[in-house]
Amino acid sequence: MATLETFAATRFLLFTELQADLKQRGTPSENISRLLDCLRATTEGGKLNRGLTVVRTGYNLLHEHPTPQEQEHLNILGWLVELFQAAYLIWDDIMDGSEYRRGRPCWYKREDVGLTAVNDAAMLKSCIFVLLRRHFRNHPEYVAFMELFHEAGFRTELGQLCDTATAAGGNIEDMTAGRYDFIARNKTSFYSFYLPVALAMHYCRVTCEEVLEKVKFVLLDIGVYFQIQDDFLDVFGDPGITGKVGTDIQDNKCTWVVVQALQLSDAQQRQALSESYGKMDMHHERRVKAIFRELGMDAVFSDFEQRRLDELQSQIDAFDESHGFKRDVFNTILGSIRRRNK
Amino acid sequence: MATLETFAATRFLLFTELQADLKQRGTPSENISRLLDCLRATTEGGKLNRGLTVVRTGYNLLHEHPTPQEQEHLNILGWLVELFQAAYLIWDDIMDGSEYRRGRPCWYKREDVGLTAVNDAAMLKSCIFVLLRRHFRNHPEYVAFMELFHEAGFRTELGQLCDTATAAGGNIEDMTAGRYDFIARNKTSFYSFYLPVALAMHYCRVTCEEVLEKVKFVLLDIGVYFQIQDDFLDVFGDPGITGKVGTDIQDNKCTWVVVQALQLSDAQQRQALSESYGKMDMHHERRVKAIFRELGMDAVFSDFEQRRLDELQSQIDAFDESHGFKRDVFNTILGSIRRRNK
Repeated sequence: MATLETFAATRFLLFTELQADLKQRGTPSENISRLLDCLRATTEGGKLNRGLTVVRTGYNLLHEHPTPQEQEHLNILGWLVELFQAAYLIWDDIMDGSEYRRGRPCWYKREDVGLTAVNDAAMLKSCIFVLLRRHFRNHPEYVAFMELFHEAGFRTELGQLCDTATAAGGNIEDMTAGRYDFIARNKTSFYSFYLPVALAMHYCRVTCEEVLEKVKFVLLDIGVYFQIQDDFLDVFGDPGITGKVGTDIQDNKCTWVVVQALQLSDAQQRQALSESYGKMDMHHERRVKAIFRELGMDAVFSDFEQRRLDELQSQIDAFDESHGFKRDVFNTILGSIRRRNK
Repeated sequence: MATLETFAATRFLLFTELQADLKQRGTPSENISRLLDCLRATTEGGKLNRGLTVVRTGYNLLHEHPTPQEQEHLNILGWLVELFQAAYLIWDDIMDGSEYRRGRPCWYKREDVGLTAVNDAAMLKSCIFVLLRRHFRNHPEYVAFMELFHEAGFRTELGQLCDTATAAGGNIEDMTAGRYDFIARNKTSFYSFYLPVALAMHYCRVTCEEVLEKVKFVLLDIGVYFQIQDDFLDVFGDPGITGKVGTDIQDNKCTWVVVQALQLSDAQQRQALSESYGKMDMHHERRVKAIFRELGMDAVFSDFEQRRLDELQSQIDAFDESHGFKRDVFNTILGSIRRRNK
């Protein structure tokens, strides 16, 4: 738990640095307060899994016990991933018209915020590069850090574009396994699973291109499994446990559940799905859920989950550790999401 | 004109490269089309001043006639500034609720776009870094290029935050010369005037920190003059020539005109401005304009413009060319905006 506490505390150090940076630029004090409010509100209440993965991976890859300097650096890189996530969640909530995030009204929903939240999110993303420059300008992997965040941004946006365009297109024929895989890999998996590990690898100078590619391969697969769980829980999860009521069916989202259901359904079921999926009322949603049950989607998911976990474990067990990357990194990450129900 | 034509043509080369990049990532073809539509629509119809400044500055700083490779590189860097501008204009139009941009409906106003334009703008910004990496990864100033775009982004956002917060705050007491200067330098001046020149300087290896700082000093001043013209034209310009009807008074914007007017007004005029500035109806707007006329704001502007042009010219004439930077760069830029009426 010491790791989590020190990690959480680093947030305030970084906010203080950003505050000083803004002051030194001559920013009016109410603008500084506004940005700090946004930073606090949008980085609070999450599980911090992405940020902690940077720290844990770093500790795992360093040969010796990490120095205080190394600990601080890894904590900072972890928070940069959390800032990244905060920025994209602000934008996502605006585009989805969401009401709540982490049990509180979305940032853009605050009375004094509204659509200026678009700019706040851009600022959070910019803060990543301000802090990278401040702390890592002389690190040999400074360029790699910047490039990783650029690539993560581009992929997240590409996944988001495909996700929203597929939902808006309204054509259930577009909801294929290939389309699903593209969305999951880009929108969630890259920044949530590969980015934190890759930052730690570069920080610890495990930078062989071939090893990075192999690690990416495994982590993107783990990330897709994570997204599939998310999709399953959206329909079949217990809102008392997940803390949210699913809206994917009404939102016409290209999810793992509907992609599988379409593959398993007969002509009549397919017709019903085509008519009722993505319609904004409870009657249609119930009809879709009834078909999912007819098709035994919960059993399909259980079978799939077991198979996917076995496959992932085989991939991990076969991973060659001789280039400095440890299989334990994968095991810790997979362990933290295995058969999750929230 | 050969410069403008070659510059304009480079756009299609870059779009073709981005298209290939997206295809290679497995992006569904309709998503590629959408992004290309956005790229085309939002980079068309502008004056290309910012992009051309990169090219002209580069030609000016290179010792010999530029090679085809150098010409292409400068054209590309110019287009990255245009992409930057396109991204921020999309976001700005969303936040301001604007209807038209460059005589056409704003990108987010298109029926099939809406708030997903938030993500499109983020993608345009990401494309800058995709293209930088593709073309300049091995350039010795690659890090400087990335840092310049990061700094330009952060400053533009900071200026935008201050601009909108001051307008939304509704307190005319906040509209001070200091506040005005902060907004103008950050929101417009840095990315429109310093960024293009700094990119060309780094490309031509004029990288002495001291010279860059001195150049920045002059260009930010020129940029503030540009913004002041903009503010003046918003109220006193001829819509037949500027092509737009000003909304700054009703939008409660902290402009040069209102800041000066507040300084020159007596208690009664100040009271009237306080009551009528930023109110969304024609009656109040007419009252504000009447006070501006009472105060002789057009003459105040003419005097100011002459004085500011003299000051800028003195700054330019005193600029030491011995470190490789040519005064002509400043003269060209200032010449292109001197006493503009649109």
